Amino acid sequence: MTIPASASKIEKDPVQIRLSGAGGQGLITAGIILAEAAVLDGKNAVQTQSYGPEARLGASKSEVIISSRKIAYPQVTKPDILLCLSQDAFVKYVSQTNPDTVIILDSGTVECKAPGGRLIYQFPITEAAVKVGSKVAANVVALGVIGTLARLVTSESLRRAVTKRVPERFRALNEKALEAGKRLVESAKVESSQAS
Amino acid sequence: MTIPASASKIEKDPVQIRLSGAGGQGLITAGIILAEAAVLDGKNAVQTQSYGPEARLGASKSEVIISSRKIAYPQVTKPDILLCLSQDAFVKYVSQTNPDTVIILDSGTVECKAPGGRLIYQFPITEAAVKVGSKVAANVVALGVIGTLARLVTSESLRRAVTKRVPERFRALNEKALEAGKRLVESAKVESSQAS
Repeated sequence: MTIPASASKIEKDPVQIRLSGAGGQGLITAGIILAEAAVLDGKNAVQTQSYGPEARLGASKSEVIISSRKIAYPQVTKPDILLCLSQDAFVKYVSQTNPDTVIILDSGTVECKAPGGRLIYQFPITEAAVKVGSKVAANVVALGVIGTLARLVTSESLRRAVTKRVPERFRALNEKALEAGKRLVESAKVESSQAS
Repeated sequence: MTIPASASKIEKDPVQIRLSGAGGQGLITAGIILAEAAVLDGKNAVQTQSYGPEARLGASKSEVIISSRKIAYPQVTKPDILLCLSQDAFVKYVSQTNPDTVIILDSGTVECKAPGGRLIYQFPITEAAVKVGSKVAANVVALGVIGTLARLVTSESLRRAVTKRVPERFRALNEKALEAGKRLVESAKVESSQAS
């Protein structure tokens, strides 16, 4: 896909991130890793999961708020970054965004019907995970994408947080997944003006 | 220890739980398991971690709110249940409680200087974990204690949530840990009037 040169780095503080998809896609772990990476960068982070009886079937989400200051209100209202790894999650959460929310989709699992003129980042996240060894690493590929695209956390802290949080026997897989996510962004064409 | 017959079952809705201790004691996992058990019971749950740069050294916490209704305000203000697995956590969080907060300590790691007249439940949680195989299971022993003492979630849902969330090779250890926590409560002497 094509990335506008200026659009992706998130400068807000606090920054709100919503990671969404289906149950079993590792979104809780992804949220914990992102929060722990922010702490390694010397920031504050709050990480939240909301569960309801419906969460077992439909869209599930994990949320992170990162700030250089103390976080007074730990609830994501409208996210600055929205990741969607499933169609149900996209349908459910795309309406709860701002015009400048950075929306990132798994192009393999989400058919994107974008609200008029919105820039939506689409990457083959699950496909990249399968290529490095297993679709269960799609959550970490997504972290590689988010980290590289929005530069919320340093890549070194993200790598250390992944190493800390995933079981040892999956460490090599997840390091490759993180790199694969980074490459998806770096190999995308960068445009000099906003796409529509 | 001695348990007053009437004091422990929590009837509040929503109920707020704060699990505290040191980093590496598995409190995030414990919070996720407790939240998932509540969902298996058909309830709603929100589970939150707050991290700051100081969290790497001192007290860390994981919070859960459980309700039969939608949870509007997902932040724990003063918990109905406070678990402390480290001295630092006890010192930090004991002041942020109500007079009727159920406070549960690991008697092996926390020296309890209770605020005047408060009932504080003390169990050898880490010791029980070591007896079933490893101190890393202290988080799940604590869940067994909380589940049996406060009856927030059914024991069947708690067992299923543990099975789902812990890696397969640690499953037997954690099932024993859950049972050990249950036994710590059941084998405590029950008093017919409130202790002081």
